Amino acid sequence: MGLVVQKYGGSSVADAEGIKRVAKRIVEAKKNGHQVVAVVSAMGDTTDELIDLAEQVSPIPAGRELDMLLTAGERISMALLAMAIKNLGHNAQSFTGSQAGVITDSVHNKARIIDVTPGRIRDSLDVGNIAIVAGFQGVSQDTKDITTLGRGGSDTTAVALAAALDAEVCEIYTDVDGVFTADPRVVKKAKKIDWISFEDMLELAASGSKVLLHRCVEYARRYNIPIHVRSSFSGLQGTWVSSEPIGDQQVEQAIISGVAHDTSEAKITVVGVPDKPGEAASIFRTIADAEVNIDMVVQNVSAAATGLTDISFTLPKTEGRKAIDALEKNKAGIGFDSLRYDDQIGKISLVGAGMKTNPGVTADFFTALSEAGVNIELISTSEIRISVVTRADDVPEAVRAVHTAFGLDSDSDEAVVYGGTGR
Amino acid sequence: MGLVVQKYGGSSVADAEGIKRVAKRIVEAKKNGHQVVAVVSAMGDTTDELIDLAEQVSPIPAGRELDMLLTAGERISMALLAMAIKNLGHNAQSFTGSQAGVITDSVHNKARIIDVTPGRIRDSLDVGNIAIVAGFQGVSQDTKDITTLGRGGSDTTAVALAAALDAEVCEIYTDVDGVFTADPRVVKKAKKIDWISFEDMLELAASGSKVLLHRCVEYARRYNIPIHVRSSFSGLQGTWVSSEPIGDQQVEQAIISGVAHDTSEAKITVVGVPDKPGEAASIFRTIADAEVNIDMVVQNVSAAATGLTDISFTLPKTEGRKAIDALEKNKAGIGFDSLRYDDQIGKISLVGAGMKTNPGVTADFFTALSEAGVNIELISTSEIRISVVTRADDVPEAVRAVHTAFGLDSDSDEAVVYGGTGR
Repeated sequence: MGLVVQKYGGSSVADAEGIKRVAKRIVEAKKNGHQVVAVVSAMGDTTDELIDLAEQVSPIPAGRELDMLLTAGERISMALLAMAIKNLGHNAQSFTGSQAGVITDSVHNKARIIDVTPGRIRDSLDVGNIAIVAGFQGVSQDTKDITTLGRGGSDTTAVALAAALDAEVCEIYTDVDGVFTADPRVVKKAKKIDWISFEDMLELAASGSKVLLHRCVEYARRYNIPIHVRSSFSGLQGTWVSSEPIGDQQVEQAIISGVAHDTSEAKITVVGVPDKPGEAASIFRTIADAEVNIDMVVQNVSAAATGLTDISFTLPKTEGRKAIDALEKNKAGIGFDSLRYDDQIGKISLVGAGMKTNPGVTADFFTALSEAGVNIELISTSEIRISVVTRADDVPEAVRAVHTAFGLDSDSDEAVVYGGTGR
Repeated sequence: MGLVVQKYGGSSVADAEGIKRVAKRIVEAKKNGHQVVAVVSAMGDTTDELIDLAEQVSPIPAGRELDMLLTAGERISMALLAMAIKNLGHNAQSFTGSQAGVITDSVHNKARIIDVTPGRIRDSLDVGNIAIVAGFQGVSQDTKDITTLGRGGSDTTAVALAAALDAEVCEIYTDVDGVFTADPRVVKKAKKIDWISFEDMLELAASGSKVLLHRCVEYARRYNIPIHVRSSFSGLQGTWVSSEPIGDQQVEQAIISGVAHDTSEAKITVVGVPDKPGEAASIFRTIADAEVNIDMVVQNVSAAATGLTDISFTLPKTEGRKAIDALEKNKAGIGFDSLRYDDQIGKISLVGAGMKTNPGVTADFFTALSEAGVNIELISTSEIRISVVTRADDVPEAVRAVHTAFGLDSDSDEAVVYGGTGR
């Protein structure tokens, strides 16, 4: 029995009852002979309430101070969790990100972990304690200021600690039973995935699956830490994410892991771009300088008569304003006619390592979409993923059609997703 | 213009409006050319709410974890205050107790400051920032764990920082206009004191005056840091506490500084103690071993016939149970008949350095009480204080009678105490 890192999200510790339930589960793992490190997020809506307070005193809160403020959230939940565990007769100590040795860069509100030196955690475990660690936070290597890792950062904290402590597994407890073949709110017959490779999980995360963040899976893959995504409300096995199936898990990888969708993006079309070398480069240099991340890109076939072409790309809706402003500002330099902005798009992605060796997948995908009457606007592919952009309205129907066409539908009528209150 | 340390209590920063008001006041001091360090408590009832949460998960919360939990309170208020100041166009940085270099012993929930190493504060001030510091908290020298200084600890943080930074003054902002000659809720004609010596303030604090804690005044006296107690709701001068009057303050010290009262104590009488050497010692050794602090002590005249006597002492009501238990447990060893417990007592104290050279003070004090029909049960004196214990019911009348007898009544009908909302 080795070391286990567990991570509990805000919905699992939303109130005193939740904290006591989580405490019991942690103690269970300890009783089973494991050393346990539990990473915890802020209680329920605490983070949002703190942001609200910040906005009441300052329209644009300073990054350093916002991080100082928000880290109070995990401080509260982790201290309460440690108390609850001690109340069950087991020794526990809570540690802030800084105390746990989570060293980051100095980019406030979205810092990146650059090192983990968990000496105090190790010492605490060695004397028989359960260690509770604040997720989402760290300390800047350069300035010694408190930083946060951005939304979903607690998962990354957990995986990073698991790597630094050489844990057997990183268990991510959440309010759903695992990773599904599609979003169960859209596809009633979606199935829980028992095992998925890091690579497929990365593609799903990049394609709109919300259960695990891309950054966290990337970290786990780099250090080869198996992740077990499971419900904190049930005792069921969830989804294992690892390089190879573990133990008696199904050893043959499915051709297709799942269907992901994403309606959080918008499409910008740059109209009337001179069709000559360097044009695309100058557009995307402008976008990059504005620190906007883009996703899919397509260049239309040039109209020979005019020598002009259109270039379309997708990006998060939240960054649309910034991108438009940057392009308009640099209009003369780039040389284009106009910009079109479209936020009524959706993206559907089919993910699976099996498609590398099954050449029919792409054809089947397009056929399923066509039969569902869904028009395709953009296409992008990787070795193990095909994504298309459609009208946002078409997304639910498209996801269901593809899910069925690839034989992913479960036999039961409705997926059992929520093991508990469904928070 | 030198360095000023300001301290704002929880009622001053109870909500976003309060925080913005405090931010303005801090910026004002900065504009006047001062370097400013502001020590801040948790917002309003935050600390009580956190304690309530702790009790929901554990009936006796672990000390280390309770400190971790409670320190979230100042983290929130200090970050918000720094944001509010930045929003006014001035640079501010917030610092936890640990970051500010407040080093304590390892006694959780009531740690004592053993060193202050404010290097980061000094650096921040030197580049022109306003420094905001979390009150009430520090970090243990031995365990590196987070500690709290106990209730009222923020005042001590402020004075300790003022000493370490060699500040001109430590301003304690509160919800009253300063220190009064008596509790204005009891004595309507109580007057604000313009200046009071450390010694008299120490006696007032020890005698029940709540405005400043004994520990904080002691610290200020040791390092000779003038304290200015004033309202955060008005711009008025408050009460200066220092070794000597400052500037054009009245230079002649009043004979009597004020009348304090305290109804938080109880009286224990140990009945039927053998009147021989060592008896009192064994009683008070028992009490000390139980870590109970006692206040006044009196031994009755021995009844020659029996060779037995009674010993009475006062102590905080909150420690009554502990003291009784300890004495009962050691009854055979000490050798006494029975214990009497009385929590219906009150203490009235007259404080003033002038009484050293005015022998009539004691007589006048007893006369005033006698004329008010107040019966005296215990008496204790120091060089600059006389205290008596009476029935609790008699306290208000006794305080008023003494206040009038020593000419402390103001000319106006009612003391103006609350400069603002009166929170």
